[in-house]
Amino acid sequence: MSNSASSFTGVSSGYTAGTPVPADSPIRDNIADAVRRVRETTPLAQSFTNFVTINLVANAQLAAGGTAAMSFLPDDVIETAKIAGANYINVGTLLPFYKDALPEIAQRLNYLDKPWVLDPVAAGIGRTRTAILQAFKAAPPTMIRANASEVIALANMWGLNTETVGDASEHRPAGVESVDDVESATGAAVALAQYLTEQHAKHSSHDASTRCAVAVSGIADLVTDGETVYRLPGGSAMMTKITGAGCSLGGVAATYLAVSDPLTAALSASLLYNRAGEVADTTSHGPGSFQVAFLDALWNVTAEQVAESEILVQ
Amino acid sequence: MSNSASSFTGVSSGYTAGTPVPADSPIRDNIADAVRRVRETTPLAQSFTNFVTINLVANAQLAAGGTAAMSFLPDDVIETAKIAGANYINVGTLLPFYKDALPEIAQRLNYLDKPWVLDPVAAGIGRTRTAILQAFKAAPPTMIRANASEVIALANMWGLNTETVGDASEHRPAGVESVDDVESATGAAVALAQYLTEQHAKHSSHDASTRCAVAVSGIADLVTDGETVYRLPGGSAMMTKITGAGCSLGGVAATYLAVSDPLTAALSASLLYNRAGEVADTTSHGPGSFQVAFLDALWNVTAEQVAESEILVQ
Amino acid sequence: MSNSASSFTGVSSGYTAGTPVPADSPIRDNIADAVRRVRETTPLAQSFTNFVTINLVANAQLAAGGTAAMSFLPDDVIETAKIAGANYINVGTLLPFYKDALPEIAQRLNYLDKPWVLDPVAAGIGRTRTAILQAFKAAPPTMIRANASEVIALANMWGLNTETVGDASEHRPAGVESVDDVESATGAAVALAQYLTEQHAKHSSHDASTRCAVAVSGIADLVTDGETVYRLPGGSAMMTKITGAGCSLGGVAATYLAVSDPLTAALSASLLYNRAGEVADTTSHGPGSFQVAFLDALWNVTAEQVAESEILVQ
Repeated sequence: MSNSASSFTGVSSGYTAGTPVPADSPIRDNIADAVRRVRETTPLAQSFTNFVTINLVANAQLAAGGTAAMSFLPDDVIETAKIAGANYINVGTLLPFYKDALPEIAQRLNYLDKPWVLDPVAAGIGRTRTAILQAFKAAPPTMIRANASEVIALANMWGLNTETVGDASEHRPAGVESVDDVESATGAAVALAQYLTEQHAKHSSHDASTRCAVAVSGIADLVTDGETVYRLPGGSAMMTKITGAGCSLGGVAATYLAVSDPLTAALSASLLYNRAGEVADTTSHGPGSFQVAFLDALWNVTAEQVAESEILVQ
Repeated sequence: MSNSASSFTGVSSGYTAGTPVPADSPIRDNIADAVRRVRETTPLAQSFTNFVTINLVANAQLAAGGTAAMSFLPDDVIETAKIAGANYINVGTLLPFYKDALPEIAQRLNYLDKPWVLDPVAAGIGRTRTAILQAFKAAPPTMIRANASEVIALANMWGLNTETVGDASEHRPAGVESVDDVESATGAAVALAQYLTEQHAKHSSHDASTRCAVAVSGIADLVTDGETVYRLPGGSAMMTKITGAGCSLGGVAATYLAVSDPLTAALSASLLYNRAGEVADTTSHGPGSFQVAFLDALWNVTAEQVAESEILVQ
Repeated sequence: MSNSASSFTGVSSGYTAGTPVPADSPIRDNIADAVRRVRETTPLAQSFTNFVTINLVANAQLAAGGTAAMSFLPDDVIETAKIAGANYINVGTLLPFYKDALPEIAQRLNYLDKPWVLDPVAAGIGRTRTAILQAFKAAPPTMIRANASEVIALANMWGLNTETVGDASEHRPAGVESVDDVESATGAAVALAQYLTEQHAKHSSHDASTRCAVAVSGIADLVTDGETVYRLPGGSAMMTKITGAGCSLGGVAATYLAVSDPLTAALSASLLYNRAGEVADTTSHGPGSFQVAFLDALWNVTAEQVAESEILVQ
């Protein structure tokens, strides 16, 4: 199933608790650098993504300043990964051969130390998807981008969620829509970010101090590296009225991951999307013109506008 | 093959015979209710559809007010069908595994009493497509949305068309384009609607008085429940210059089917498309801006505008 | 992998050497005739193309005035080819069954004397893609449309490139982006056009005087029939910031191939794209509005504007 109704449900939000990140925080410098470096170096991020939103994923990566390549066969994916700065796997629309291909690809990306972003679309729905997502526990991504229900479902699937969340099935996304609010996914997001960081510290040649990240899309997006929880107010409710805002956010996060650490990439992509959504909201007359204006805004929003965004620490 | 050139060929039509449905007809109340209920309840309609227009199908369902999810694996489709209000199967672009998967899915949807819309794209072309469409006779949809040639080809394939239509091959769509006018598909459409209604009355737990429906897209769309034949003048010739107007009409019909009976759903979707096409026609400068304006119009056209449309009874 | 970042990188170019084709050249009459005949006869061009840009390919073919049908199963492709004026094969996103299906389809298209355009996306990347492109040497297309690196890689793969080009791997596209300029692909393009022409003269019933063509997209596109090398300045750098400009150019070339000879089709499609890109460049504010304006311009640019373009002979 595909993330056809966006799992990105940011809207101009009301009050979100948290301490504002100061204007002179190095986090903001990292974000501005990531936005600029993508535009200056047009890094390649490869995607294995669903058929519904594959075109928007590519166009969003290009509009953010990167380049895109989409592959499905393991030999294509692995050979392209060798020249790509980062990769993106989205389990939206599954075909029979994915059940073997995706775990193999995840293992080989990790063996090659290639960073990748996972969008566990509709986590918890379907035997095949569950088998694939279970297999990713042994070859985990560098970053996860999902909605609240998908994050909770994946943490439960991997046995990481220590909170009492009742029957896991209560937390399955309704189709591709979240049935949980972002707040309720905090524990699952932190647990996943810690697990990804531990696994990559063990097996990766990367600087062990580099932490992995999880981005939860919704009203006031949540981004965490497992140590700090950031909340990002803003965005546009119209993001839920076009298909693929969430999928393409995962793709753009991979574009930033090609030039920065996972936390910076997750924050930069989520903030760019909120600012671009707000611009498109004011200049469009419905979902058709919103998508056009949104792609234009991904291209036109400045690195300063992204870096100066409201960021709250919980 | 996919419905890439739209099989929806509505244009501001000339004279179409028929008796106008009165302004106070309950049919108009049902249509207004369906349009409003979709916008108020955002029902999920799942699609198994072609790769050419899958993005437009999802965006059109969202623009009409519903939500969308696309699946291809039987386990995904069936599990999602349990939470969806209706489903949509479009046989545009076939892959090898569809030959077994689609008949299985149709059987399970009917076993579970889940309503679904069929778009028999390019009916009559290709052995694999013919085998799949033949299999659907034993597990028929709740509604069919197609162009005139596809409706005639399907009725012939199922042995339902009692009219003398000469060699069936004369009525195969030319690629995905109709070679027959809507008028000539009247007998086939009525025969199909009667067959679907009879089969569902036998096997479904639904109110046996609920009739199935067939919508034939073209100049002055035709919609029938097998008892009454309705004609719907209007639309825009530009609908034939963007890909997927027909496919996405089938998807939006499924969205309405999630909140109403098949006849109301077929009428509501066809009328919304005609009104939105007319709005987009006046505000666009070519097929690119037409598609953008059309999606905006699906979002902005009011329930009253849809319900007050010209509807003729033949 | 798919041509997601366009391999069409035409920009308002600086000096390109060559002798201008005179205003009264019959080449210009052939181009104007092709543009008009497509709009008057709406020919069907069938595509077997990638999932990233399949929607844009269809919409571009419709905007140029043709009709489109997309197929993947051999039985669909061959039966549709019998009613199509030309066909298009793009090896962007491969699935496992393509390895057997695509060589079979190429053989059957040539056996049936059906003209087809090949876009060898990412030639040189992946064992499966290499096996498919190798197989096409024995059943070659009528036209090739690609970027410089793909043209060089394919000529090397087929053993046609007599120039010293060093290690072939140096000339593999970087993902889907060219690492070579158009100029450097001249020898490979001429060698490929001559090979295609020789093979079709042997095996085709067509007029043996009809020559095949190769179009190399980039800054000042190159088109050759193996005898003459034409350069086409102009276009827009924004073509590289939307996905599928190259893929859809291949599709539109197939649309023109349905009504004209390969050289005229390659020139007409490339020139229409340059003129439409220039129009869209002046009326858009980013990649979202550029794509919309580009599709409108494909519809609105006149046959005269296309035929009166600057064309240089090298």
